[in-house]
Amino acid sequence: MKSWGGRFAAQPDASAADFGRSIEIDAELAMEDIAGSLAHVAGLLRAGLLTPAEAEAIGGGLRSIADDVRDGSIVWDPAHEDIHMNVEMALAARIGPVAGKLHTGRSRNDQVATDLRLFLRRRIDDIDTAAFGLERALVSLALVHRDAVMPGHTHVQPAQPVLFAHHLLAYVEMLERDRGRFADALKRADLSPLGSGALAGAGFALDREATAEALGFSGVTHNSIDAVGDRDPVVESISAAALTMAHLSRLAEEIVWWTNPNFGFVRPADAWSTGSSMMPNKRNPDAAELIRGRTARVMGHLVTALTMLKGIMNTTTIIMIIIYAQLICTY
Amino acid sequence: MKSWGGRFAAQPDASAADFGRSIEIDAELAMEDIAGSLAHVAGLLRAGLLTPAEAEAIGGGLRSIADDVRDGSIVWDPAHEDIHMNVEMALAARIGPVAGKLHTGRSRNDQVATDLRLFLRRRIDDIDTAAFGLERALVSLALVHRDAVMPGHTHVQPAQPVLFAHHLLAYVEMLERDRGRFADALKRADLSPLGSGALAGAGFALDREATAEALGFSGVTHNSIDAVGDRDPVVESISAAALTMAHLSRLAEEIVWWTNPNFGFVRPADAWSTGSSMMPNKRNPDAAELIRGRTARVMGHLVTALTMLKGIMNTTTIIMIIIYAQLICTY
Amino acid sequence: MKSWGGRFAAQPDASAADFGRSIEIDAELAMEDIAGSLAHVAGLLRAGLLTPAEAEAIGGGLRSIADDVRDGSIVWDPAHEDIHMNVEMALAARIGPVAGKLHTGRSRNDQVATDLRLFLRRRIDDIDTAAFGLERALVSLALVHRDAVMPGHTHVQPAQPVLFAHHLLAYVEMLERDRGRFADALKRADLSPLGSGALAGAGFALDREATAEALGFSGVTHNSIDAVGDRDPVVESISAAALTMAHLSRLAEEIVWWTNPNFGFVRPADAWSTGSSMMPNKRNPDAAELIRGRTARVMGHLVTALTMLKGIMNTTTIIMIIIYAQLICTY
Amino acid sequence: MKSWGGRFAAQPDASAADFGRSIEIDAELAMEDIAGSLAHVAGLLRAGLLTPAEAEAIGGGLRSIADDVRDGSIVWDPAHEDIHMNVEMALAARIGPVAGKLHTGRSRNDQVATDLRLFLRRRIDDIDTAAFGLERALVSLALVHRDAVMPGHTHVQPAQPVLFAHHLLAYVEMLERDRGRFADALKRADLSPLGSGALAGAGFALDREATAEALGFSGVTHNSIDAVGDRDPVVESISAAALTMAHLSRLAEEIVWWTNPNFGFVRPADAWSTGSSMMPNKRNPDAAELIRGRTARVMGHLVTALTMLKGIMNTTTIIMIIIYAQLICTY
Repeated sequence: MKSWGGRFAAQPDASAADFGRSIEIDAELAMEDIAGSLAHVAGLLRAGLLTPAEAEAIGGGLRSIADDVRDGSIVWDPAHEDIHMNVEMALAARIGPVAGKLHTGRSRNDQVATDLRLFLRRRIDDIDTAAFGLERALVSLALVHRDAVMPGHTHVQPAQPVLFAHHLLAYVEMLERDRGRFADALKRADLSPLGSGALAGAGFALDREATAEALGFSGVTHNSIDAVGDRDPVVESISAAALTMAHLSRLAEEIVWWTNPNFGFVRPADAWSTGSSMMPNKRNPDAAELIRGRTARVMGHLVTALTMLKGIMNTTTIIMIIIYAQLICTY
Repeated sequence: MKSWGGRFAAQPDASAADFGRSIEIDAELAMEDIAGSLAHVAGLLRAGLLTPAEAEAIGGGLRSIADDVRDGSIVWDPAHEDIHMNVEMALAARIGPVAGKLHTGRSRNDQVATDLRLFLRRRIDDIDTAAFGLERALVSLALVHRDAVMPGHTHVQPAQPVLFAHHLLAYVEMLERDRGRFADALKRADLSPLGSGALAGAGFALDREATAEALGFSGVTHNSIDAVGDRDPVVESISAAALTMAHLSRLAEEIVWWTNPNFGFVRPADAWSTGSSMMPNKRNPDAAELIRGRTARVMGHLVTALTMLKGIMNTTTIIMIIIYAQLICTY
Repeated sequence: MKSWGGRFAAQPDASAADFGRSIEIDAELAMEDIAGSLAHVAGLLRAGLLTPAEAEAIGGGLRSIADDVRDGSIVWDPAHEDIHMNVEMALAARIGPVAGKLHTGRSRNDQVATDLRLFLRRRIDDIDTAAFGLERALVSLALVHRDAVMPGHTHVQPAQPVLFAHHLLAYVEMLERDRGRFADALKRADLSPLGSGALAGAGFALDREATAEALGFSGVTHNSIDAVGDRDPVVESISAAALTMAHLSRLAEEIVWWTNPNFGFVRPADAWSTGSSMMPNKRNPDAAELIRGRTARVMGHLVTALTMLKGIMNTTTIIMIIIYAQLICTY
Repeated sequence: MKSWGGRFAAQPDASAADFGRSIEIDAELAMEDIAGSLAHVAGLLRAGLLTPAEAEAIGGGLRSIADDVRDGSIVWDPAHEDIHMNVEMALAARIGPVAGKLHTGRSRNDQVATDLRLFLRRRIDDIDTAAFGLERALVSLALVHRDAVMPGHTHVQPAQPVLFAHHLLAYVEMLERDRGRFADALKRADLSPLGSGALAGAGFALDREATAEALGFSGVTHNSIDAVGDRDPVVESISAAALTMAHLSRLAEEIVWWTNPNFGFVRPADAWSTGSSMMPNKRNPDAAELIRGRTARVMGHLVTALTMLKGIMNTTTIIMIIIYAQLICTY
């Protein structure tokens, strides 16, 4: 537990520390935090603010932490409130006082803003890959059943015969729009906030463009006050996720009803159904049902994120939302 | 009140008709409905499904209705449930039975989908103009006060001095992203659904591309089932509106606090303040406060729209959301 | 358009007035506003703050306005921003300057808080009557079909046979809980805020208990700061409405699916169905579908109300929510 | 991973099992699950469906699992999807095949419904204790500063002087209403669903009232279809939580602004503030800020819960919401 130094008479209260702790959640940002720091170290070296030896020491320490994150051997210390503090403390433990030089020309605010954008980029990449996989699965299924005709419905009532393939390809259209929305969110988030400081810029002449390029950003943010406070990418991504889930929920709902023997259009694979010991006649399409519930969760996250954005935000809690939002991919 | 014809023994129940009526709300779509019909008439003429005389009669009737909408002289009949039925009935009253030929090759479903997209285009144009106007106002204010310094805040506590102009320009960054989001929503909605029929396509060979071009769309939708059911543009627009309002709310909140004499940074113009007869010392920045309340409404609309989308949608009610969403521009 | 008097150099800006206007919406509160004023007049007379002649003049004027509201002949003036200002202006026009004495010992803040509670009481009474009517309808239907057996479902799959009556009576249980929630909301709102002033109490010794009793409240609020700002009754009522609508939506969803010929459990009455000119086979249970959409709207209103409550509220906008919430009864 | 038996050819798919797993979340229900089972065992014994020896064996096994949960030594197995399956498997491992007799006359559905109600009761008790503690803290503070006068605000502008104590006691009024809402939610949830089976009741004559009494319920539910599907208590509790958080958020927002040196009304204790290495002048009231963010999360949970309730629910996911909702107490 850190003290805020001489001006503060007392140590932080234990329950205050508990209340503010986010390491259980933002540990997910570890690799992004390290990547951002490595790029910053290169910038400090270029600017002559670190000697080659210092840069090597800090870089080596960060890479060794990254190795331990990657192989799962790292253990974060709940006494340090968040992932940023944990990485700093681990670094100091490994390389000693030179670790403190990593602070030069960077504030926690532009560091967190950078981590968030890197994290979103990774998650959106994963989501896009999954969406493309689903599109291919739907197209394959459409090809296999290219001649199958089914009743098209409006208002849940049979309306006109349609090709089953045509019905499936409607979802491909939806997924294409969904992917476009995620790509547009990423496009707007693709600028490096590093160099924005706490809100008024950094006190050192660092080459922001070079650092941005090293991190794979297409450019740098233009206004430091906006850059450190901008959580639009989070909300925009969750909005895209909510629409995606609405589409998946619609598909899931169809599967659930079509499984009902009064329809009998589809029969879920054994491996994806659950039964009931009391009712051996049952064959429940559980996964499809779960998707509908997950949709409700993403909607809730969107409300949370927008409500936070409306007020004045706290970094830690907004990270929680992002972590939640990733659920749309892994669940 | 219309009857559904011979197969139905009874007239619609009066309270059922009341329950389903949307004309008070969707009257807003009148001009878009007429524009869509005029383009469809041209298409029917090209395809030889209308004679030149018929096309002239229907077109003339539609244009005369448009004139009456424009000058405010039209009176819609609540006995007809929605704007589409009202326009049809007004057309029949003006030109007689030939009005019925407007139905050829078009369903209510692709008609409504087209109207919605045209309506969104108009609203987004209005919103973009308003956002650009606000950007210019902020830049002008920044220029006037280019040397003013103010305390920059983090966590609502003074942090570092910043230029007032820098603070204002942060909002220009936000508005630029907001405009980008609306533009991206429009880009995805810029395809004509006409020709999709009820869900399985139209029964006549109409030139969809020509009609799309006449309506100013950049192309046509690719899957009829998706096209008639796609309400993504509505949700995506309200999502963009919710983020925009979150930004405006943040600005409004600053104005409210800065007006407080403990800050005294700004003094609202008399013409934009309200006082109190009981408390002559008061000077309330009412408009700024109202913006915060309006933000809550747009958030509510977003939840409404997403919840509707998750289930199986009803055209009438989704229109209500769009009409609401336009509030972000007019209020 | 009113001026705020000598201290303010300028008249309110026209667009500021437009922005703040709520008369189109809060006109719904007219009868409650007048009832609150009549009780206040009686209190002023008891306290000797009005002469019998003044009380008679003001009371007579208010009753004549109430008569015009009741028979629909009143026309509100959009130049006066809300219903409270409109009633005041109408009163002054009818009885002259003595109308101004109605202000004695009352602020707009405790007046609005009182109107809201009276309005909620009326709406909740209406909702309770409607809910009880639905319960009776379900019980009657259960009696008529007391021997009918249907497949009970879990996970949308047939599970065990149940009595149709048993299924219907499940909804009676839900409605009983819903009615309990509305009654509990009313119980907590059943205290008169009159006498709380703007926030620090009234400057005159008025008998708050007597006025509360005259308005049918069970007592008076205890803390003036809380009383003028308390919008809990609104949010609690919309929460109850959201749960009620979730139940009705579940029933509506069953009706929609059971109407599908693959189930064929129910056949909607002609008077409550819509067909399609293109598809004469259709029989759409429109009303049931609309209920699902209305549920989404109430959920949106709940988010709006909670978001407003979280910030510092504006009276006008919160009224809009209440008016919306009443939709659950009339639609 | 369990198989659904002979009718199902294949084992559950590994990713399907991952997707449906909830043990990480619903482990929180362990003590309630065991308490419900112990009461059920007593009922089976009374009904002669278990011999005393069997009841003793099962009861002893359950109590030994409870001991391990209490001292933190239990390790749940992620191969078993939820807490109910985990407890069953642990029981079988400890006492052998007789464990299977616990299934008699009970379905997973009425078991889960019972667990949820017991869990809510415990959480609401905790919340009520915390709310009462806050009330006492506010009253104590009001007593200490009984003569302090502060500017009362409306519209964020100073309005009239008020006692600081009066301001604090306004929050006591709010908290009293909040406690009333939780109590009302509990009142409606205070009925035992045990004996409702999967949805159509249990196949054995068990004394439902006796089991309800053993679990501390005031009575039994009346309709089995309603009882197994009723998640109203969850939504009603989260609604009460959302209003409570709105009140706490309002208090927190005041603390945040009053800490600003332009107000300087309050000075957060060192132990509850954070500073900044870059800006030694800072004293951030972090805990107050976090409360505002937590409010947004509870609002999101409410939307999630209502959206789930609107559709057809899945038990596992609804449990997640409850677990989240408890955050309002522990954070």
